[in-house]
Amino acid sequence: MGKLRVHNFAVSLDGFGTGEGQAADAPFGHAGERIHDWMFATRYWHEMGGGRRGSVGADNAFATMHGSGIGAEIMGAGKFGPPGWQDDPDYKGAWGPNPPFHTPVFVLTHRPRPSIEMKGGTTFHFLDAAPAEALKIALEAAGGQDVRLGGGPSVIRDFVAEGLVDQMHVVQVPILLGRGVRLWDGLESLEEAYHIEAVSTPSGVTHLTFTAKSR
Amino acid sequence: MGKLRVHNFAVSLDGFGTGEGQAADAPFGHAGERIHDWMFATRYWHEMGGGRRGSVGADNAFATMHGSGIGAEIMGAGKFGPPGWQDDPDYKGAWGPNPPFHTPVFVLTHRPRPSIEMKGGTTFHFLDAAPAEALKIALEAAGGQDVRLGGGPSVIRDFVAEGLVDQMHVVQVPILLGRGVRLWDGLESLEEAYHIEAVSTPSGVTHLTFTAKSR
Repeated sequence: MGKLRVHNFAVSLDGFGTGEGQAADAPFGHAGERIHDWMFATRYWHEMGGGRRGSVGADNAFATMHGSGIGAEIMGAGKFGPPGWQDDPDYKGAWGPNPPFHTPVFVLTHRPRPSIEMKGGTTFHFLDAAPAEALKIALEAAGGQDVRLGGGPSVIRDFVAEGLVDQMHVVQVPILLGRGVRLWDGLESLEEAYHIEAVSTPSGVTHLTFTAKSR
Repeated sequence: MGKLRVHNFAVSLDGFGTGEGQAADAPFGHAGERIHDWMFATRYWHEMGGGRRGSVGADNAFATMHGSGIGAEIMGAGKFGPPGWQDDPDYKGAWGPNPPFHTPVFVLTHRPRPSIEMKGGTTFHFLDAAPAEALKIALEAAGGQDVRLGGGPSVIRDFVAEGLVDQMHVVQVPILLGRGVRLWDGLESLEEAYHIEAVSTPSGVTHLTFTAKSR
């Protein structure tokens, strides 16, 4: 059976996974892109755009795990688009005609709509489902491969709290956002369920990896 | 002029510097001593008790900075003793007859009392003063050496928010406390005022050092 994995999920030192004031031109609110600068510097990121530049050290190794062995993604409505996207029947996500997923993507929303097939192998499906049910559907679609849990922070929290996440990679960036949506709320004693490693890298970030003890 | 420094201040991954429910037999509340296990393993810690055991790697190097060049400490009332200590006129702090400070220590409290001279060079003074005023008094007492800001979390926050802290060493421990007193609240964009380094060590903790850009 495939696993449920979180990759490249960035938080500030004070634990915010997204800032305040999300909008079409500010998908991470006042956080801007600062929590992803470490990733933009990697070869992984440049190659997604067809380039050959970028660092090939530890940040790149962690970042590259994002796509390895993944057959489907689950994401929250807040990752798919800015507040209010449900009111636009023609909205097709924040990534243009060829989204970087190349698998089925299950968008959790209380207002589901028909599936949308995009270029490059990405198909968006819309589910009004609880975490365990959504995971079951995504695992079937992944055909034996793993499922990525794409965020945002409150969606990751929900799945972790229900014990559904097998592996989680969180990148802690040395800035203080001060406000937004916290990743860690309500997860007291998470260390009892996961082996946790911390690895800081020369870019200044710290990669935290969580591996479920039971699986 | 001496500097104001924070050392060995431990927080959980979710940013709590102390847990909920502080009491005489639980100075860190439900956190217990888990956020200090990394320090108890060091040579620095064992030598304070007269022993010679303990690790001498990176954790020990960071821990040892605690006493280097320090001429006084400032601490909050919540570090000096459990809730209600102000009602006991004979209370002399949580460390026994020979406290591990060996300098003047300024305890911030709205209910000051006469100074207490302890064994080993520690004298407790009690101040009802704002951060800048307390720092001025402590710097004079330090006689040209630096002043350590001993915590707890809300006291550190107050001094940082007023721009009084020159150096800060925070040790992030890979557990989630879920509740207690947060260190990072109200410090948005702290990275603009400090150079920040992150160094993870084999014990599993990550040492975060903040160096003020302006000083």
